[in-house]
Order: sequence, then structure tokens, then C-alpha cells
Amino acid sequence: MIERPRGTRDFEPDEMESRKWLEDRLRKKAENFGYREVLTPTFEHIELFLERSGPSIVEEIYSFEDKGGRELALRPEFTASVMRMYSESLRGEPKPLKLFYFGPAFRYERPQSGRYREFWHFGTELIGADTPRADAENIALAYQCMKDLGLDDINLRISNLQILEDYLKKYDLSRDEREELYHMIDKEETDKIEEKFDLDEEFFDLLDLPFEEVSSFVGESSSYEHLKEVMKHLSYYDIERSDYMIDLSTVRGLDYYSGVVFEIDAERLGAQKQICGGGDYNLGDIFDIDISSKGFAIGFDRLHLALEREDKLFDKEREGCYIIPIGEKNISYSYEVLSKLRENNLKADIDLKDRSIGKAIGFADKAGFKYSIIIGEEEVKNEEIALKDMESGEQESVEKEEIIGAI
Amino acid sequence: MIERPRGTRDFEPDEMESRKWLEDRLRKKAENFGYREVLTPTFEHIELFLERSGPSIVEEIYSFEDKGGRELALRPEFTASVMRMYSESLRGEPKPLKLFYFGPAFRYERPQSGRYREFWHFGTELIGADTPRADAENIALAYQCMKDLGLDDINLRISNLQILEDYLKKYDLSRDEREELYHMIDKEETDKIEEKFDLDEEFFDLLDLPFEEVSSFVGESSSYEHLKEVMKHLSYYDIERSDYMIDLSTVRGLDYYSGVVFEIDAERLGAQKQICGGGDYNLGDIFDIDISSKGFAIGFDRLHLALEREDKLFDKEREGCYIIPIGEKNISYSYEVLSKLRENNLKADIDLKDRSIGKAIGFADKAGFKYSIIIGEEEVKNEEIALKDMESGEQESVEKEEIIGAI
Repeated sequence: MIERPRGTRDFEPDEMESRKWLEDRLRKKAENFGYREVLTPTFEHIELFLERSGPSIVEEIYSFEDKGGRELALRPEFTASVMRMYSESLRGEPKPLKLFYFGPAFRYERPQSGRYREFWHFGTELIGADTPRADAENIALAYQCMKDLGLDDINLRISNLQILEDYLKKYDLSRDEREELYHMIDKEETDKIEEKFDLDEEFFDLLDLPFEEVSSFVGESSSYEHLKEVMKHLSYYDIERSDYMIDLSTVRGLDYYSGVVFEIDAERLGAQKQICGGGDYNLGDIFDIDISSKGFAIGFDRLHLALEREDKLFDKEREGCYIIPIGEKNISYSYEVLSKLRENNLKADIDLKDRSIGKAIGFADKAGFKYSIIIGEEEVKNEEIALKDMESGEQESVEKEEIIGAI
Repeated sequence: MIERPRGTRDFEPDEMESRKWLEDRLRKKAENFGYREVLTPTFEHIELFLERSGPSIVEEIYSFEDKGGRELALRPEFTASVMRMYSESLRGEPKPLKLFYFGPAFRYERPQSGRYREFWHFGTELIGADTPRADAENIALAYQCMKDLGLDDINLRISNLQILEDYLKKYDLSRDEREELYHMIDKEETDKIEEKFDLDEEFFDLLDLPFEEVSSFVGESSSYEHLKEVMKHLSYYDIERSDYMIDLSTVRGLDYYSGVVFEIDAERLGAQKQICGGGDYNLGDIFDIDISSKGFAIGFDRLHLALEREDKLFDKEREGCYIIPIGEKNISYSYEVLSKLRENNLKADIDLKDRSIGKAIGFADKAGFKYSIIIGEEEVKNEEIALKDMESGEQESVEKEEIIGAI
């Protein structure tokens, strides 16, 4: 018996329908904001991901050699690929360029609740606009995606990495050391930080400080002013001060982020609660272009789960008609009715198995049809159908010409 | 400079938009016929594909070992995965079960026009209905997909593999020999067939025979009658005798097909002209279930190309509004207008770069917006906007309350 690979999933019709619904909602929202969809290959040369995320990612990546000896890898995320695409073929497009993507990504991790080896990302890149206004647009789209879906129990945290960078200048840490420090901050490993780095107590205070007191530590620096400007612009999207926290411990690693960053958690998801993360980054090093970008990625599976936990997924309703011809002679007329329904963009099906009427009605019920349409000799003679409502069980005769109106 | 892997593609916004349009058309059509979407993992245990398609497929497959020592492979097609899913978790569903899927599949082949290493399949499986009516439904959906899209220059060829199987009984060929023979028929290698197999001249006549004369060779066998019944049912879908050829040389290999099979070619595509293939199959051997299924797969990339060649893809039109605030003081009002447009599900964007009005209008033009909305001191004072049609170049003042109506 051949089974599904560990850490992957099959999506059955009901779940697929609600995932499609969610995908469409996100897609429409991004289009509404002027973003346009792109798609990159499922695998890339492995160097692309190593250069973006560092050699440690090899442990988590699905890599393989193709028959031509190329080292390839299934994408662990999309940003590196989209920026590779940008640098190969979209450099000449007018800026800012607003792109979004949706698809599967892959990581070899221990499977657990909310964490899979194949998972879906919905995300955006806003390329070539280095203003607080662009940061606000980026955050607002992510936040409005959640809010429009009715998700209540979420937390938005915003920071400007540059504030910490400025503050840390006096310690003269190397880039590698700062990256290590940020990873520890991200994991809330205060003990390790104290052990490894000789930082003043004040630094830990700064991480916990309400925004309004940050300036007393760092002064009205340009990175502080930039963040304030982002906050002002967020209010234009009706995202008020009470809707988010300014939290300098939101760092997302220095691997490529450099300015304003943010994360959104869905509190009901437990340990794997982060459903969105993003910010300002620059991948110029890899592609030999100096261009500032902002983006985010939504963990689609987790967002779907969060909506389910809050009971915000749509309710599946019965739909469509199931046509049951009684006897060989009435087949042709039955197909006429079938074509008429389908041509009017109504979901319609016909008994393909020549079953008894009882069994066929049982099938229509279990398969979730809204109506059964029974067609026997009487119906053909009178040019009508017997329309049975599968919910109420009521049955009525409807003239052939009136069918579309009756449904 | 890291490039895209050979044989793969990036999809830029314009192409992605027309691919999405096509995907949605196919999806709606399948739903209209009562099919429901499923999705399986991008990779599977390699045995699944070897058992389905034979060991020769190893040469064409992207396979790799994961960090747990499992032999995995990127799917070369979907049917094996969907049937694996069926046998794992959908066995108990009422039959017939109508499923469809859309996604990328992978083969390591020499890239050429219309042939890629990552390509997209849209396809269906109709599980558990063994009637001519079900064959007709299967073929009709594939054919109507093409016709509804306006594709004219296509050829539908239909056969019943069982007719050849019946005929060949007198030669007492093994299953392997028959498979080899069918592959040669598929490739029109008449010389090779004559060399390898000692068949009567009559056999080659049979391959070329019009349907109406087939019965004079094979008699009114049950496989002949089955095909006739399929043809009668096709006429209920307005697919008439002149719309297709009965062509016994349409064989698709015996690997798992067993009954009525069909192929659709788009004549304008040259060597890689087949855009759809399918038929009746039974994968019971692999999954230890005896269930008859029918399905087809559409080569999505080729279908897209065929529509392009016939100029049947939709014309991209300008859409959306680009808001240009003049001066810092008018920003807040500009965002009010932006929110109003977006809340009304209109695509809208705002200048994120603080450009001069000339540059901003130039951007709106190049980026394909239908309108620019210019907001200066005068507009804010009078609670209006300056609406500029990017096609005609005309500009008019519109009251703030009238914006949605004016667009």
C-alpha cells in the first residue's frame, strides 16, 4: 500500500473549496491594492536560497541533483525567486512594481500541528519605493486581509530594525554577531544574550519599552521619525494606535530585512501562531541591483486554520441539480434538461449509472445536491420535470420552459 | 548571476492574468458538470509512479532522497496521486465520484516549443461508473472546455481499445507484446510493426477504417456496441458525428487504459499538438481496489498557446485608478479617496514615491491605469477630485460623493 509522504496533505473536496474561497479573497484584496500576480518555478538552483538565507538552510531544504548534474532545490519561500525573476526580466518595469504570488513551498521539518513539509504561501513584494508611505501600504494590506476575513483574535507587532541597529553601534558588533543577537531576541533567549553579549541593562529595557518612551533612549533619530511617519500613514487606513504594538523585539533576523518589519499572530493557534511576517528588505547583494523592497508572506494553511478556529469559514450549502431519468426512452429529454441547466451556468449532473430512483435520490442527497429532477414518461409527455427539494423533501411539477426561473 | 533552471518558466503579470482567466474558465466548466476540486502533494513516494507507468519513467522523472532516506519524486502527472488519495481516504464516498485538479507536474525532458520541465495539467477523474453514458460525459466535458473557449481548429479522435484487444486475440500476444505494439501504433511506426509482428494486412486496414465499416471486420461485438452507445450519447451534448473521428489507431498505450479512449489535437501547434488525452482506465492493481474510472488531462500550457495562436485570449484593458496627491497637506484627503475606491472593490493605488505630477501621470499611463486622480489644494477645498481619463487624456472635476458613480 503506497501512502502519502510524511508531512504532506491531500485536500478533499470540502476543504479544497474553502481553501479556494480563501485564496480568492486574498487575491482580490491584493488586486484591489494594485498588486499583480506572478509565478516562479517550483524549484530553483540551490545557490539562490543559500545566498538569501545562509548555508544553515541546507538542513531544512529539499535539494536534489537533476539528470544534467544541476543542484536544484524546492523553494522554501518565494521572495528569493520573485527577486530573481525581477532581476532577470522585470528590471525595466515602471516603479514601484507591486507583485503578489500564491503557491506551495517546502521545508524538511518535523511535522506538527500547523507545520507541514509542503505548505502554502500567499505573499507580496513592493519593489522600488523607499518611503514610510510604502511601509504603511505593505502593513495595511496584510492587516486588512485578516480583518476583512473577519479574523478578530490577532496581534500586529511593528518595529523598525534600524532603531536597534543605531542603538547597537556603540557596542561595535560585527554583522554576524548582530544576526546571532537578533535570532536570540526573536526566540526570547534572554539568558543566552546575557551570557554571550556584554550589553547594558538598558538594552533589555529598550526591547520592552512602549513606543512613546523609545525616543527618550534613542532620541528623535531618523529611524525613529521614519517609524512615526509609518504610524501616521497607518491611521489613514483606519489602523489606529490601539490596533498594534510597537515592539522593538520584533526583529525577523537581519538575514535580509533592514528597516520597518512586522508580524501578525493569531492567538488561537498556540505555539505556531505567527500567520504573517514581512517588512523592508534589500536583496541587492545577490542580484547586483540596489533596490529597496517591502513585502510580506502569509502562512496560508495557518490562516485557514485560524479562520476555522474562529468559525469564520463560509458555511457550505447544498447546490446544483441531479437529474434522474426513469427508463431508456426518457434519456434524450433528460439530456436536454441537463444541457439547459449547464448552459445557464448552473451546476448539474445526471445519473451515469442507471440506478433505481430510490438509490439515485439517495446519491443526490449524500452528494449534497440542492434538487433532484426526476424525469419519467409523464414528465416527457407534458414537457415538464418533477423538481424535488432535497432539504425540505417537497416535490413539484415545473414546466420545461420555467426550469431556470424555478431554481 | 543566478538564473532560472533550464526548461522552467517565470510568469509575468500579463501572462499570469491570462493563465488565471483560463484556469477559472476550466474550473467553472468542471464545476458546472458536477466535478469538485482536489489537490495532492507535489511529490510522492517514487513507487507510486513506477507502478503506474512502468520503470522506464525513471528516466524522465525528477526523483530524490529526502533526509529521512525516502525515495521521493515530483509528480509527472496527477492520476496516480488522485487514485492514491481515493484509496487512502475517499473510498467511502458515494459513487460516481467526480474530481478535478489543477497544478504543476514535472518531467526531465529536452525542452522545446510547447514542452517544458515544469508544466501544468488540468484534469478530471470520474470514479465508479462503468457505462457508455459516463464515457460520453468524460469526452463531452473535455470537448466543451475547448469549444466554449472558442477554439476552432481542433481534432477529436475517439476509439475503444477493446476492439483492437478483441481482434488481436487470435494472435495470442502477451500483454507486454501488445503494449509494445500499441506504442508503435501510437508513434505510427508501421515499418517496425511489420518487422516485429507477423500480422495480417487486414490489421492495418482496420486501423484506417471509417467506423461504419469496422463492424464488417469485428462483427457487432460488445466493444463495438459500447462505442456506438457512447456516440449516441455524445449527440445529446450536441457533439455530432462530423465533430470527431473514430480512429482505432488512437491507443494511448495499454499501461493502464482499457476501454474508450480519446485525444484532442490543436492543429496550429505543430509537432506538440496534442492538448488533451484521456479515457477509461483501471488502477485497481496498484491500490487493491477494482474500480473503473474515466478521466482526462488537458495540457494547460499548450491549450493556452493554442488559444493565443487563434487569437482567442481576452484583450487586456486599462483598469483602476491611480491617485496623485499634490503636496503634503492633501495626503489625508487623498487616502480618504483611496479607501473609498478600495472599499467599493475597485482597483486603486496611490503614489508611494512623492513624485512630480508629470512623472506620476507617466507612471499611471505605463502601468496601465484607466484613470489618474489628481488631488491638490483646490480639490480638497471644494471636496472634489480631478479625474483624468488615461486613454482620451480628458480631465474633469468630480464631486467627492460622485466618484464611484463616475468610474
